[in-house]
Amino acid sequence: MSEKKVYVEEPLQEVLLEGRWQWSSGAATFRSHNASTGEPFCDEFPISTWADCDKALNAAQRAAVALRQVPPETTAFFLDLYADKLEENSTMLCNMACYETALWFTPRLALAELPRTADQLGQAAAAVRDGSWKMATIDKKLNIRSMLAPLGPVLIFGPNNFPFAFNAVSGGDFAAAIAAGNPVIAKAHPLHPITSINLASLAHDSAKVAGFPLEAVQMLYELSPADGLRMAGDPRLAAIAFTGSRAAGLALKAAAEKTGRLFYGEMSSVNPVVILPGAMDERREQISKEFVNSSLAGVGQFCTNPGLLLLPAGEPAEAFIAAVARGFQQDPPGVLFSAGVRDGLVNNVQAMVDAGAAVVTGGQAVEGPGNHFQNTLLRVSAQHFLSHADVLQREAFGNAALAVVAQSPQEMAAVLETLEGNLTGCIYSHTGGADDAAYDLLAPVLRQRVGRFLNDKMPTGVAVSPAMQHGGPYPAASHPHFTAVGIPASLRRFTRLDCYDNVRPHRLPEELRDKNPTGAMWRNVDGAWTQEDA
Amino acid sequence: MSEKKVYVEEPLQEVLLEGRWQWSSGAATFRSHNASTGEPFCDEFPISTWADCDKALNAAQRAAVALRQVPPETTAFFLDLYADKLEENSTMLCNMACYETALWFTPRLALAELPRTADQLGQAAAAVRDGSWKMATIDKKLNIRSMLAPLGPVLIFGPNNFPFAFNAVSGGDFAAAIAAGNPVIAKAHPLHPITSINLASLAHDSAKVAGFPLEAVQMLYELSPADGLRMAGDPRLAAIAFTGSRAAGLALKAAAEKTGRLFYGEMSSVNPVVILPGAMDERREQISKEFVNSSLAGVGQFCTNPGLLLLPAGEPAEAFIAAVARGFQQDPPGVLFSAGVRDGLVNNVQAMVDAGAAVVTGGQAVEGPGNHFQNTLLRVSAQHFLSHADVLQREAFGNAALAVVAQSPQEMAAVLETLEGNLTGCIYSHTGGADDAAYDLLAPVLRQRVGRFLNDKMPTGVAVSPAMQHGGPYPAASHPHFTAVGIPASLRRFTRLDCYDNVRPHRLPEELRDKNPTGAMWRNVDGAWTQEDA
Repeated sequence: MSEKKVYVEEPLQEVLLEGRWQWSSGAATFRSHNASTGEPFCDEFPISTWADCDKALNAAQRAAVALRQVPPETTAFFLDLYADKLEENSTMLCNMACYETALWFTPRLALAELPRTADQLGQAAAAVRDGSWKMATIDKKLNIRSMLAPLGPVLIFGPNNFPFAFNAVSGGDFAAAIAAGNPVIAKAHPLHPITSINLASLAHDSAKVAGFPLEAVQMLYELSPADGLRMAGDPRLAAIAFTGSRAAGLALKAAAEKTGRLFYGEMSSVNPVVILPGAMDERREQISKEFVNSSLAGVGQFCTNPGLLLLPAGEPAEAFIAAVARGFQQDPPGVLFSAGVRDGLVNNVQAMVDAGAAVVTGGQAVEGPGNHFQNTLLRVSAQHFLSHADVLQREAFGNAALAVVAQSPQEMAAVLETLEGNLTGCIYSHTGGADDAAYDLLAPVLRQRVGRFLNDKMPTGVAVSPAMQHGGPYPAASHPHFTAVGIPASLRRFTRLDCYDNVRPHRLPEELRDKNPTGAMWRNVDGAWTQEDA
Repeated sequence: MSEKKVYVEEPLQEVLLEGRWQWSSGAATFRSHNASTGEPFCDEFPISTWADCDKALNAAQRAAVALRQVPPETTAFFLDLYADKLEENSTMLCNMACYETALWFTPRLALAELPRTADQLGQAAAAVRDGSWKMATIDKKLNIRSMLAPLGPVLIFGPNNFPFAFNAVSGGDFAAAIAAGNPVIAKAHPLHPITSINLASLAHDSAKVAGFPLEAVQMLYELSPADGLRMAGDPRLAAIAFTGSRAAGLALKAAAEKTGRLFYGEMSSVNPVVILPGAMDERREQISKEFVNSSLAGVGQFCTNPGLLLLPAGEPAEAFIAAVARGFQQDPPGVLFSAGVRDGLVNNVQAMVDAGAAVVTGGQAVEGPGNHFQNTLLRVSAQHFLSHADVLQREAFGNAALAVVAQSPQEMAAVLETLEGNLTGCIYSHTGGADDAAYDLLAPVLRQRVGRFLNDKMPTGVAVSPAMQHGGPYPAASHPHFTAVGIPASLRRFTRLDCYDNVRPHRLPEELRDKNPTGAMWRNVDGAWTQEDA
């Protein structure tokens, strides 16, 4: 277990700055709560002031320089060690995360999210050893050579909904930023600081063992909004990675971009799911079950939660809606992360009702302990949706969904045309050709509005695949060329393209010399990808 | 020759909107001038109002949809035809550009820039046929597949300094945006509208012959600043590409990013050139000639003009400075693009003098006809530079350079540490090992501050190589991952990453099916690059 002891007598916890645990400059503190009971934990976490931020930024700049000298094997060893420590400490970590988030210990945390997080760190380590992510490109005739190189310090804002897999100090952004050679300043989510301090402690210990620069992994728990914005625009940073609400994301985006920082945000999505008539006839029962499971997974608190269901009007749709409603009623409402999430649901569902959506089931907050909201299904006609599309496509983060019932494929297309950018979009169609005409009409419209386009599959699973796109058109994400999940693709966000023109051979980085440095790195030599020497 | 006749009796010219030449909604007009004589040409060009912009944006949206159905061969044919027409009309085009810009007909326009522009369009055509730029990625086990896909309408602001190679309707941004499958709205530079209308006419005619969507190539000549900013933020656009001044670039960047548009800007650079003592001893004469040639090429009006020279103090540096001064004096000052460029030089040189730089030679505007400024060399000590680095590293666009004389390699490093992001940076060193220690000290510092890092070579040549980086850290460019020159890399700016998850095989884009669509497209299948079927 880690040398950093949590749960000791001293309730005030330290921040991880400048490569060591130290007292925060901030006097104010906060505590996290047992999400299921509302009881606060005894540990107190500091709200950092600018003095902490300033230290973190200076240390990150030093770390960026130090990292240039770190061999790939050291970084890979650090990531692998950290992954191992996650697995070794799974029970402790999952217990804490379970308390702080009310996500199920099993299967969610212990069998899915933690192993996935460790696997992601391991994949990042493999990418570091392999080096192909650098896309080394060699033009032999002109002796011009280029490769993707580290960008510089990255500030990561972790979200509330994945205490491991998107945690600022262990998740996808962390793995990608570190693997690409950058120092990280993690801004933990204030709903799960105990989980985060334990993760950071394992990371810090792993860095010590691996000989990885200690200042490359720093963590703060909480900041004032003003300090958060000031940090996002600080010239000592190279990039900001953010997963969270649209309002917070857009504020950070503006602050970052004003001074030329890069902002990579994932900022809300309703993830439309379209079910075509043939599929409805063919396997209504099965699809309704898939939808209920996907909708209620993690109490709907997924970036890729299917919040908008588009159905063809008629008896089958009525039966489908009834089946979903039954499913929503049968499953007791899960515990939400916080009163804030519950209040957001209350407000967003009310706004949709005010805009004309009818409540099929649910619609109300539920008394505690813990924050609950009834599993909620709303419905509205496509015709009505079209005249209130702005409100009705607003993300209601949590266990609520809106069914939109359309009179024709043309009306479905019109609904899709109104959608903003989303992370995902899915079409269920008949396994034969019965839905082909409607599919051909709708698929191009939906394709343009989403990053990941699915067939016959709910969107909540986000595989760590090299072909993944977890991102998409604005405002679901900030830049549709990049993905937040998938290795090595997600590393690209944290790179710059460095060109070497006429540089003498012995002065080139190893990756750009004629000799392939690993014998297996993929490089593009005179237009062809090869693992050979140039 | 083109069907669009320029130089007919009617002096008022049309805009290219909605796939046809039409009268602008704007009543105000402007004319371009013979840059060498100051005489205006008779053609009058409209200053578009918002009605033109609105038409262009709607048409570009339609074109974006139409382009999705256009086979690669059609786009490639269009680009090749256009390249051919440039070559066929070289004399006419170079004559006009020569008049409007005062750049030399030969070698600059006819032997360098026009062939390069045609070659770039041809390389873009080849990239379209090849398709490897899409970086198709296939995860067979999970059946998740992704590729880079067109982004949507791109608004291109062309600069004053390359009437062909960076012209909004023929240059690198145009070639890249079109090759990646996007419609272009070109905002021509108002200093060379006659050149631009002739180019646009050739493009339009090529599109007609090739069957390429006519609305995919539109052009306006001039807008009010307010309409330019409004356009940059319009949600119908996907991206803005800009080459020009920092002030204009940053204003457009803010307007674009505020609404989630992507902004790709190239916005000023002083392109430091460092000469180490050993190189100074070894080949001072030769390097001074290279510097004079690079400095005065195109009257210094290059993005990559070497504006900052960093020299080791001593007799050799004095001799070097004297040699450059002689070179600057021997070459009569060239004609600048405009009074604006001259006035910018006057102001920037004055600001540097006010900040303590001494005039070695030049320093004054020269009486017309045509706008001239004396070839100007300033000098300052490194010590002084360090205390006025903000003013002294300001780009003085044109034929002026600042020599900074340092007492030691450490002082050189300190100077480099103060530099903002630049497009290029170069170190000249002894061909033996005499400068190795200084090189090892300075190279890492300079490397971090530039996109393209050179050895023993002036920066003004920007090859269209797959390994090029014409871009760099902010504020030289807006996003250091991307390059504005180099095919296929420059196409990536205008792409989004589209993922297909569990999509039925026959519904996948051809690029993502198991069978390689061309038999030669490079795709990443299960982590390995291959031209085989998946």
